[in-house]
Amino acid sequence: MDKLFAYADRQRDAFVDGLKEFLRFDSISSDPARAATCAKTAEWIAAHVKGLGFQESRVIPMEHGHPLVYAFHPGPPGAPTVLIYGHYDVMPVDPLELWTCPPFEPCIKDGKIWGRGATDDKGQVWIHLKALETLLKVNGGKLPVSVKLLFEGQEEVGSEALTAWLPDHADLAACDVIMVSDSSMLSKGVPSINYGLRGLAYFQIELEAANGDLHSGTFGGAVANPINVLAKLLADLKDADNRVTIPGFYDDVLPISEEEKANYAKLPEGTAELLAGTGAPAAYGEKGFTTAQRTSARPTLDANGIWGGYMAEGAKTVLPAKAGMKVSMRLVPNQDLKKITTAFREHVKRLTPGAVRLRITEMHGGRWFLCPLDEPMIQKAAAALQEVFGHECLFTREGGSIPIVADMAAILKKPVVLMGFGLNSEQAHAPNEHFDLENFHLGVKTALVYMQKLGS
Amino acid sequence: MDKLFAYADRQRDAFVDGLKEFLRFDSISSDPARAATCAKTAEWIAAHVKGLGFQESRVIPMEHGHPLVYAFHPGPPGAPTVLIYGHYDVMPVDPLELWTCPPFEPCIKDGKIWGRGATDDKGQVWIHLKALETLLKVNGGKLPVSVKLLFEGQEEVGSEALTAWLPDHADLAACDVIMVSDSSMLSKGVPSINYGLRGLAYFQIELEAANGDLHSGTFGGAVANPINVLAKLLADLKDADNRVTIPGFYDDVLPISEEEKANYAKLPEGTAELLAGTGAPAAYGEKGFTTAQRTSARPTLDANGIWGGYMAEGAKTVLPAKAGMKVSMRLVPNQDLKKITTAFREHVKRLTPGAVRLRITEMHGGRWFLCPLDEPMIQKAAAALQEVFGHECLFTREGGSIPIVADMAAILKKPVVLMGFGLNSEQAHAPNEHFDLENFHLGVKTALVYMQKLGS
Repeated sequence: MDKLFAYADRQRDAFVDGLKEFLRFDSISSDPARAATCAKTAEWIAAHVKGLGFQESRVIPMEHGHPLVYAFHPGPPGAPTVLIYGHYDVMPVDPLELWTCPPFEPCIKDGKIWGRGATDDKGQVWIHLKALETLLKVNGGKLPVSVKLLFEGQEEVGSEALTAWLPDHADLAACDVIMVSDSSMLSKGVPSINYGLRGLAYFQIELEAANGDLHSGTFGGAVANPINVLAKLLADLKDADNRVTIPGFYDDVLPISEEEKANYAKLPEGTAELLAGTGAPAAYGEKGFTTAQRTSARPTLDANGIWGGYMAEGAKTVLPAKAGMKVSMRLVPNQDLKKITTAFREHVKRLTPGAVRLRITEMHGGRWFLCPLDEPMIQKAAAALQEVFGHECLFTREGGSIPIVADMAAILKKPVVLMGFGLNSEQAHAPNEHFDLENFHLGVKTALVYMQKLGS
Repeated sequence: MDKLFAYADRQRDAFVDGLKEFLRFDSISSDPARAATCAKTAEWIAAHVKGLGFQESRVIPMEHGHPLVYAFHPGPPGAPTVLIYGHYDVMPVDPLELWTCPPFEPCIKDGKIWGRGATDDKGQVWIHLKALETLLKVNGGKLPVSVKLLFEGQEEVGSEALTAWLPDHADLAACDVIMVSDSSMLSKGVPSINYGLRGLAYFQIELEAANGDLHSGTFGGAVANPINVLAKLLADLKDADNRVTIPGFYDDVLPISEEEKANYAKLPEGTAELLAGTGAPAAYGEKGFTTAQRTSARPTLDANGIWGGYMAEGAKTVLPAKAGMKVSMRLVPNQDLKKITTAFREHVKRLTPGAVRLRITEMHGGRWFLCPLDEPMIQKAAAALQEVFGHECLFTREGGSIPIVADMAAILKKPVVLMGFGLNSEQAHAPNEHFDLENFHLGVKTALVYMQKLGS
């Protein structure tokens, strides 16, 4: 272990330089114009992994979507197989003008690396690659366990290609444990394992009230204004207690158990800490729950975007023809995506007056995930985290969605260990995304310890 | 009169060619980048008027804003003075992709001239200039009345410069009647005079819930979503009967008199006709009023634009930091702009939760206008319209706002005759604005007859 740590310590700067190179790819998966960049990113990773000494490392083209990176290196006979999952794609970067350091020209500042993908998920993928490099270099090309790598390029748009591919390639991906680092730890210095993720149902709603924009003087008051109607529709989706009004929405929501309440009580962060750095004037959410519960064990409904009419400078007295919004719901165990989708569609139709034309588009959805806390693979991971970080590993549920996690668990029928090294404050999906470099280096060591534990 | 009509008939094509030239100026007053274009447009008109034989025609720079065109030509001693008001500025043109004919490359199709400003207001200004040309050419440089021209470049952004200028230059603008053609006639073949206009109060509302965009998974459910809050705010500004909820909003609204109800009953257009061409699936508005009443004698509240979060293609699971909207109210007699502004601000503040920061900006406002129906200047105008169009002139109230009309009436203390030659279907303020050329030519003749009547 000392030798491994010594190597990792010596290579700190080299590791970070490599990550910078990785972050320079503007691999935004939702942008069709960047398909070639995504393919190039995959080729670059596959080549890098091959260079580390992996027996097999290749790019697998997907029928629809960006390619997959798959790699394999065998461990000793009888050793378990760890499948390490991650994604090389990133979110869009607008509004671009808010970035201090350009999103694809990473820079180091305040002990952090800044750039799109730094924490979500390139930085966390890099942790595992650098741990594997360390093991291979120090041990003469040998690993304590068999390792498979599966890095996809569409996590930020719903992982559909991988989800479609996986059932037919379950043998190729067969393993004993699935290791995922694509989430956050509790806070700096406090390691944690996520045993739950929220699901997602994402829709686009468009309203059309006329064939073209109208003069608000001439027609104002006599025809429906799609912005006003859309606003009322969105407002009607929640009640005064910030509860979602879709009939049956809460029917299958698992109540928070007593054991979980005890876990929540252990969490060092209160509402103030969770909100610190966001600049939010106050907490605001579903009545009857704490901020930590609201962001993990409770479902939500949020507009992610809205548009309509005149949005530029100045005043234009237009009665717009159209308006639209993107609305997503974070789902929790045991809400059923299909059932919620149907209920949402019906509720929206019911709330929409006949004076506008309604169009609902399903964007993407993902199942929630929940793993038993007594799973040995999780307990070993918690031990590794505790050893490296010198702090008890806490158990949390994460508010975000990683649809592929639920799918991998269901298809490969193996436990998924969600070991996140990000921080909530690291602006994932927002301008000025960054990743704490101390967590990066501790992450490499944690991965080393975990793989040694699994192999022993 | 025959000679005048004969000249106007001979010059039909030349008149339209001149209007095309006028429409080619992209004089969008709200765009600071087009200030030079607006100035050029003013110079062009002043030169054109001088070329018609006016004694005086010049551009008057404004302290803030685009210049004014002022012109004067004396009539016979003792003849009344007509002040003809119009505006050479136009509305923005987005969304540009919806225009069949580019907005500033006018074309003739289906007996109409297409381009931004065609009906609002360049085409209607051109009617008066061509009537004046006819009188001057046929009568050897003489007019039957004294004529003053006042063409401004900021009507579409609230006429503030002219409103500020007018009180100090009331002598220069002194007249016996103010003639304005900047509105619509009832329908093709049915001339009308507007004796009322709605006022306007226009605001921008911005909400900020955090210092930057947040991940909707990590923070969703625990902090306010400015889009959801904004939607609720907008929805709460109206009740289930589509009545505005601002306390006191209807207190000063004049009920529709029995005489006015009789006028409304005479109008040939029903709801179906008013909505025809808009593509609106149904009428939608304040309970208890007809479409014609809703668009003229009743106040409204409409969002003119809304924005926030991710508006591009695809799905982004962002919890936006900010959202905003433009909201305007059409005001009617005797609502007071200041009182409504204060009530609106207070109501919006009251409706906004403490979990977001609120910013309200007053964009512009304008008073409503109402003129007595028995005013002789109006009765003569009605007679001229009836003579040329061969149809009884009806009396209507217009839904749009021309703030400067109320201001001119108040400052110059003279009747304002609103003789509109546009049609409601002509897409003022929207893509594919156009102007019916038959109405244009009849408009020229009506202006000729009216000036002869005033001079005799």
